[in-house]
Amino acid sequence: MTYDIVIRNGTIVTADATFRGDVGINGAQIAAVGQHLEGRETIDAQGLLVMPGGVDGHCHIEQDEADGSVHEDSFSTASASALAGGTTTVVCFSAHLPNGRSLVDQFETYVEKGRRSRIDYAIHQIITNVDEQTIAEGIPEVVRRGVAGLKVFMTYDDFHLGDGDFLKVLEAARNAGTIVSVHCENYEAISFMIRECLARNETSPRYHALSRPPCLEREATYRAMVLAGLIEQKIQIFHVSCPEVVEEIDRARKRGVPVVAETCPQYFVLTGADMDRPGFEGARYMCSPPPRTKADSAGLWSYVRRGVIDVISSDHCGYSYDGPLGKSRFGRDAPFSLVPNGIPGLATRLPLIFDEGVNRGNITLNQFVALVSTNPARRYGLHPRKGTIAPGADADIVLWDPEKTVTITNSLLHHAIDYTPYEGRQVKGWPVMTLSGGRIGMRDNAILAAEGDGSFVAPLKGN
Amino acid sequence: MTYDIVIRNGTIVTADATFRGDVGINGAQIAAVGQHLEGRETIDAQGLLVMPGGVDGHCHIEQDEADGSVHEDSFSTASASALAGGTTTVVCFSAHLPNGRSLVDQFETYVEKGRRSRIDYAIHQIITNVDEQTIAEGIPEVVRRGVAGLKVFMTYDDFHLGDGDFLKVLEAARNAGTIVSVHCENYEAISFMIRECLARNETSPRYHALSRPPCLEREATYRAMVLAGLIEQKIQIFHVSCPEVVEEIDRARKRGVPVVAETCPQYFVLTGADMDRPGFEGARYMCSPPPRTKADSAGLWSYVRRGVIDVISSDHCGYSYDGPLGKSRFGRDAPFSLVPNGIPGLATRLPLIFDEGVNRGNITLNQFVALVSTNPARRYGLHPRKGTIAPGADADIVLWDPEKTVTITNSLLHHAIDYTPYEGRQVKGWPVMTLSGGRIGMRDNAILAAEGDGSFVAPLKGN
Amino acid sequence: MTYDIVIRNGTIVTADATFRGDVGINGAQIAAVGQHLEGRETIDAQGLLVMPGGVDGHCHIEQDEADGSVHEDSFSTASASALAGGTTTVVCFSAHLPNGRSLVDQFETYVEKGRRSRIDYAIHQIITNVDEQTIAEGIPEVVRRGVAGLKVFMTYDDFHLGDGDFLKVLEAARNAGTIVSVHCENYEAISFMIRECLARNETSPRYHALSRPPCLEREATYRAMVLAGLIEQKIQIFHVSCPEVVEEIDRARKRGVPVVAETCPQYFVLTGADMDRPGFEGARYMCSPPPRTKADSAGLWSYVRRGVIDVISSDHCGYSYDGPLGKSRFGRDAPFSLVPNGIPGLATRLPLIFDEGVNRGNITLNQFVALVSTNPARRYGLHPRKGTIAPGADADIVLWDPEKTVTITNSLLHHAIDYTPYEGRQVKGWPVMTLSGGRIGMRDNAILAAEGDGSFVAPLKGN
Amino acid sequence: MTYDIVIRNGTIVTADATFRGDVGINGAQIAAVGQHLEGRETIDAQGLLVMPGGVDGHCHIEQDEADGSVHEDSFSTASASALAGGTTTVVCFSAHLPNGRSLVDQFETYVEKGRRSRIDYAIHQIITNVDEQTIAEGIPEVVRRGVAGLKVFMTYDDFHLGDGDFLKVLEAARNAGTIVSVHCENYEAISFMIRECLARNETSPRYHALSRPPCLEREATYRAMVLAGLIEQKIQIFHVSCPEVVEEIDRARKRGVPVVAETCPQYFVLTGADMDRPGFEGARYMCSPPPRTKADSAGLWSYVRRGVIDVISSDHCGYSYDGPLGKSRFGRDAPFSLVPNGIPGLATRLPLIFDEGVNRGNITLNQFVALVSTNPARRYGLHPRKGTIAPGADADIVLWDPEKTVTITNSLLHHAIDYTPYEGRQVKGWPVMTLSGGRIGMRDNAILAAEGDGSFVAPLKGN
Ligand SMILES: [Zn+2]
Ligand SMILES: [Zn+2]
Ligand SMILES: [Zn+2]
Ligand SMILES: [Zn+2]
Ligand SMILES: [Zn+2]
Ligand SMILES: [Zn+2]
Ligand SMILES: [Zn+2]
Ligand SMILES: [Zn+2]
Repeated sequence: MTYDIVIRNGTIVTADATFRGDVGINGAQIAAVGQHLEGRETIDAQGLLVMPGGVDGHCHIEQDEADGSVHEDSFSTASASALAGGTTTVVCFSAHLPNGRSLVDQFETYVEKGRRSRIDYAIHQIITNVDEQTIAEGIPEVVRRGVAGLKVFMTYDDFHLGDGDFLKVLEAARNAGTIVSVHCENYEAISFMIRECLARNETSPRYHALSRPPCLEREATYRAMVLAGLIEQKIQIFHVSCPEVVEEIDRARKRGVPVVAETCPQYFVLTGADMDRPGFEGARYMCSPPPRTKADSAGLWSYVRRGVIDVISSDHCGYSYDGPLGKSRFGRDAPFSLVPNGIPGLATRLPLIFDEGVNRGNITLNQFVALVSTNPARRYGLHPRKGTIAPGADADIVLWDPEKTVTITNSLLHHAIDYTPYEGRQVKGWPVMTLSGGRIGMRDNAILAAEGDGSFVAPLKGN
Repeated sequence: MTYDIVIRNGTIVTADATFRGDVGINGAQIAAVGQHLEGRETIDAQGLLVMPGGVDGHCHIEQDEADGSVHEDSFSTASASALAGGTTTVVCFSAHLPNGRSLVDQFETYVEKGRRSRIDYAIHQIITNVDEQTIAEGIPEVVRRGVAGLKVFMTYDDFHLGDGDFLKVLEAARNAGTIVSVHCENYEAISFMIRECLARNETSPRYHALSRPPCLEREATYRAMVLAGLIEQKIQIFHVSCPEVVEEIDRARKRGVPVVAETCPQYFVLTGADMDRPGFEGARYMCSPPPRTKADSAGLWSYVRRGVIDVISSDHCGYSYDGPLGKSRFGRDAPFSLVPNGIPGLATRLPLIFDEGVNRGNITLNQFVALVSTNPARRYGLHPRKGTIAPGADADIVLWDPEKTVTITNSLLHHAIDYTPYEGRQVKGWPVMTLSGGRIGMRDNAILAAEGDGSFVAPLKGN
Repeated sequence: MTYDIVIRNGTIVTADATFRGDVGINGAQIAAVGQHLEGRETIDAQGLLVMPGGVDGHCHIEQDEADGSVHEDSFSTASASALAGGTTTVVCFSAHLPNGRSLVDQFETYVEKGRRSRIDYAIHQIITNVDEQTIAEGIPEVVRRGVAGLKVFMTYDDFHLGDGDFLKVLEAARNAGTIVSVHCENYEAISFMIRECLARNETSPRYHALSRPPCLEREATYRAMVLAGLIEQKIQIFHVSCPEVVEEIDRARKRGVPVVAETCPQYFVLTGADMDRPGFEGARYMCSPPPRTKADSAGLWSYVRRGVIDVISSDHCGYSYDGPLGKSRFGRDAPFSLVPNGIPGLATRLPLIFDEGVNRGNITLNQFVALVSTNPARRYGLHPRKGTIAPGADADIVLWDPEKTVTITNSLLHHAIDYTPYEGRQVKGWPVMTLSGGRIGMRDNAILAAEGDGSFVAPLKGN
Repeated sequence: MTYDIVIRNGTIVTADATFRGDVGINGAQIAAVGQHLEGRETIDAQGLLVMPGGVDGHCHIEQDEADGSVHEDSFSTASASALAGGTTTVVCFSAHLPNGRSLVDQFETYVEKGRRSRIDYAIHQIITNVDEQTIAEGIPEVVRRGVAGLKVFMTYDDFHLGDGDFLKVLEAARNAGTIVSVHCENYEAISFMIRECLARNETSPRYHALSRPPCLEREATYRAMVLAGLIEQKIQIFHVSCPEVVEEIDRARKRGVPVVAETCPQYFVLTGADMDRPGFEGARYMCSPPPRTKADSAGLWSYVRRGVIDVISSDHCGYSYDGPLGKSRFGRDAPFSLVPNGIPGLATRLPLIFDEGVNRGNITLNQFVALVSTNPARRYGLHPRKGTIAPGADADIVLWDPEKTVTITNSLLHHAIDYTPYEGRQVKGWPVMTLSGGRIGMRDNAILAAEGDGSFVAPLKGN
């Protein structure tokens, strides 16, 4: 058999194994993995790793905000950035605004927005307004329409749910059969801390970190797991920032609570001290939960290595440093409490984890693939269509040069954001080509995929 | 020297030691502990244990409710009941009603109410209305006026504080220098559980227990300790009902959180199954947190034995079974959610713990004294005036017959409540005389102390 | 390309993914995994699972005993039994007898014995005689010659090492670069227990279990991990029988000790009560550590599911019930202490774990493959040559009928042992064909592979 | 009543309470504790703390060694040193030498030796030779004759028991009804470590600490507790040096193992770095287990404060720095392995713990008394004869000046040892008078008690 495209002579890496071989692609799918395959077109992967494209389970794209604004990165720019970094599927967030429109309507509008994506996308539905209709009709219907999961916040003025509403969402999710992902920080306690900071005139970015200590992330995580255990509903703890939180997750699992854990690159390569830079510079590193300490990063790696945490997402957030929607929207003297939380990270996710994880011996190559692609695909029911290299899987593939040393600079990242918190950082290991749906979407940092090349993807049946 | 009264030939038991000897009393205080003391009056304690009178750190007496009613047990009846059971000091609760009166005013009114007590009393001040004045003026002032501590609720419609208000109280307590005791159950989750029960027409008393599972007590306890740790303020966890909660307390202490733990007799001798009796009978056993299982009781004993829990109070609550203020105030068909929570227990506290604890080998005699008298006295700064037998201490003493077998019946208890949940239970070990302030307050179940014999007691300086 | 053999239309299952596809084989290796592959010969796998053949990391085959006897199952019979059960690689044990021959000599003799194996085999080298030559020359040399790892015993009269000798082996292993597997039970304490049993005339098989309680396995495991941590040498804990042992393993890993854990089917499907059968029947179930309780089995599954234990081997032991080398070699009235320890299990390993694990929802299909094939192959450096289905891997494949219900009976198992402890047990899921090195070694329970078809396999470089 | 002696106006401190009062003494016993007591003789204790004399549960006095030597401190000098430091009871060690004499004989000889003690003494019987007679006759008989407990070693060439012998001792102790105290360090692993040190020519005192890492103390402690749990026999873990060991003790208790824990002053005020001094100086600080780090000391205090460790003994060991029996018996170039282990500490125990514990807020005054007097007295069945101030107790009392600042120097300590490891250390709080059996044994550092003033004390009945 002759395939449409054959990727030749690469070192194929899956979550399971590393081996020499060719990948044969027909149309949008992988048709074979073998030796000496023949193709009408061939791509030479000699010296390269051939891995399933990254699946980023947590990124904020073109998301509507309560104040009427929208995240700066559009589906067009964000999906370009994903391709630049070797990621071929994003799971992004449909907001739930208090605008009188039904949950389903808001979900469908967001599905439509995504039509301009260059890569495939799945959707988390945020739930902020726990009214009767949302519970009784909205949630079951978005599940039927292919939502990847629900998302709730335990903090933030505009989003946080009280425990009672959270329980209703958990119950509705259980009945509809979907996962609930949770941003775990104690809203009232952080509000208290922020008020105390502001009252002492502690307004610079460093107080962002100090007002959100690990114990308040740990408390909310513990609470979320108790509530999930009560309802017997699976939850995912988003963006775990430090080992003391993971310890509680490990304990909850031993009690039988169905809980999974995600972390992000920033918790390995940034620290709270990054927010302590002069002036407003620290705002470039502000996200929630905030990065902690080097010791926390080391502790997280230990838990990742042992499989207790098994997903690494970006929590990509589209806020520039400058501009009307950016970090400094209220000026560079604005108190930290007015600075939007979140940092960009779609394109840098794989390179940072490869460099910090694989190169430094924290994880194996197979674990790398599992963490950034296979496991997130499993989590949202997209596996084995996504997240592996096997016949029948989508031909979403990244060709990775493990020896290529790159100094990260914002222009390489193709997003709409005016900075990267990793500017100037040098990493070894970089994607040189990304295929999405059997087409070359990125080659040598040039984005070749067009707007609309991607499709909405729903969880597979039986997952 | 000749003493006013000498208690002769008893076996004196303190938290520290057990030894034969006499106790010499002058006026209201102990003057000597020795051999062959001479007194103008002598009490023969041959064959009896001579112990410091019980200190009950948690009892609801003549407490005002939000609906304008008041707990059925008055200072007169409750203090009689205390004497009947060997207790000589109560720490009761000043309510904090939304009636426009200041915290200090409400506290002083309650101090006045107590003037009719037959025994000494100290006061917890409940905080439910966390306004600026309460925080800035009320709390510091009641501390100056001798409050034993503050009390907050994490559950109950009328009382519960959100985490933000809780933090303000913790901070005010730290600044004023007093302890905060906490009723730990997750308000919103229990409300959710109750709604679900009622929606399924599960209204009988047994659903009281089912709607308040251990995990929701554990969660609230965990949260309270995180918040206390954040403020670096000492808290007491009230009425711990099961080992899984104690495990978290033990862990929090290892992290350095200053937290102490109380439990109550009902968690050793009742179980959730008691609420599962036919008709409305189960209401007699309804308190919060609800009694759990026999295995939980055994686990609690293990923690008590090892000193992890070191106070046993009664959580005495003045609700009769019948009558307009009682359990059946809304009729015997009322759903469990309308039945007042709480059971009487002032008089039975020492006999139950002696029988279950000492007689069955769960604790030593010295631990018994520590748990029911010495440690609660320490907790509220009343030690060594209260809680020990030593020169200078108040002559609050119980003479205990360790061989006397008694079948508990309500008429023995001298309270204003029309039942006891322990009716018919046989125990070995019973108080035969109680001295309060150097006077015989109870002899052979006859109450000899008069209304007003007791005084308000404030924490000693330097505690 | 046309392949020698194509396995058509099966559902391919690896540790990573489950997908429809064909497997193309050239010679002894897999050449491709794809859709619509063409082969000179085809095997129809419609309705079947196509999985990497089992890798059994722990089986005693034709092993020399100190008394001059040899385990009943020869390489010929044991490898036939392996094929019958879907296993294509065994890791067996070279003894270390006090016969004056060098370690290397004994190893080479055993490698030679293996030449009659029908399937590939790797070898653990047991160390019992820790003399200078064994440490200085023997261990480095057997590592150079391809030993899979070392094995030490902490119990058994003939084998146990004291802690000092154990440390020497750990140090030698670290220097040579190989893993050390350990049988963890406290020798002296078990000897004490056995003596006490015999002194009380407690001689029947049930006392085998009672004389080896979980705490003595836990203690030895704890000790082994402390010693390994001291030397910073990786160890594998063999045949973990109960959760209290796993808890210690989990804790040791958190301290940074490099330790891996194995368990066996008997710890899921047998219990201590099986040894409590009348007469000598209990001897059929005697192995060490002994099976525990149903609660222990459930606890083990929980740890397996969460990945804390990640290898399941058979600990296959060649002792018949009858016959001069069997369980009753000293008669059916012999005390339990004279009965050889160990039970057969090579052929039943995959069916039992598939039925108990996958069918009952304890693990996923991918976890099943990981536990019985991929992970043991990794452990001994045989992956990805063994343990996966990928181009370049050995064509060691099992075709599994997930719907086939089989009542286990000894004649199906093709070993030299006269019984199976699972006689009469019904399982769903059974291997219908096993390929080894590209040849059909078993079809419909007929053994087609010849003696000598297998080869000795050494760890791959770089593992 | 007029007492023989009245100690006036002191602040009496027991494990239970602190209060002003007088102590009346008649003959050798306390007759009363009261206010305004009258005595034929009075001692003014104004400004002083009046506490029960220290009970040192672990000190090596005039102990025979296997090599025929005897510890330098005799009963005469050691008891003088005890009095100087406020200690009034010692529990010392009868050796068990391989000299053919029966256990009972050796015990009785040691009881006789003690006749020259100036203070009361109880005796631990060491067991090193676990023969049939020792088990069947020796242990029951020494218990009948009033031994305080048994002592076994898990390390040291001359003393260590294997696990089998240890189990026999545990069983014999259970049958006879006495406690077993254990020196927990892994013998074989430490021997291995020492050999490795010596092979690398690492011979100076600092390698003493490095060859006995915490993990080997932790391992042996864990093992000892498993064995004790198996036999259901109470054990005491001697001289716990670091928190990781206490963590295991805490866990074992949760499993129901009856285990108690002792630590010593050196683990709070010395560190491993003390052995790292130039030349042979480090030998002054060599004891086993070795002092660890400042962080370990802080962790130990936390466990002491929470009551998990509740005895502090001295582990006083009579080795001078110079002289034929001292640290340098084999010269100052001798390898650490030839230096006797142990440091003097009888007289400094109370001052060091008072200063480090009470003055720095690690423990309360009542905890201090409990740790150094009441709890050890309880442990060995000597309470309430020893360890408290109450009528009927022995008049063993220390008068303590909490404000007195003293620079420790060897001449203050009255022992036969030529140095103290605490030379030059300044402490606040010092004993100014010690009464033993109603007589003044020490006043202002002058020893007034005569040889023979003390008596052998056996556990009280019913303890
Ligand atoms: Zn978030
Ligand atoms: Zn996010
Ligand atoms: Zn309450
Ligand atoms: Zn209450
Ligand atoms: Zn074994
Ligand atoms: Zn084996
Ligand atoms: Zn020792
Ligand atoms: Zn010692």
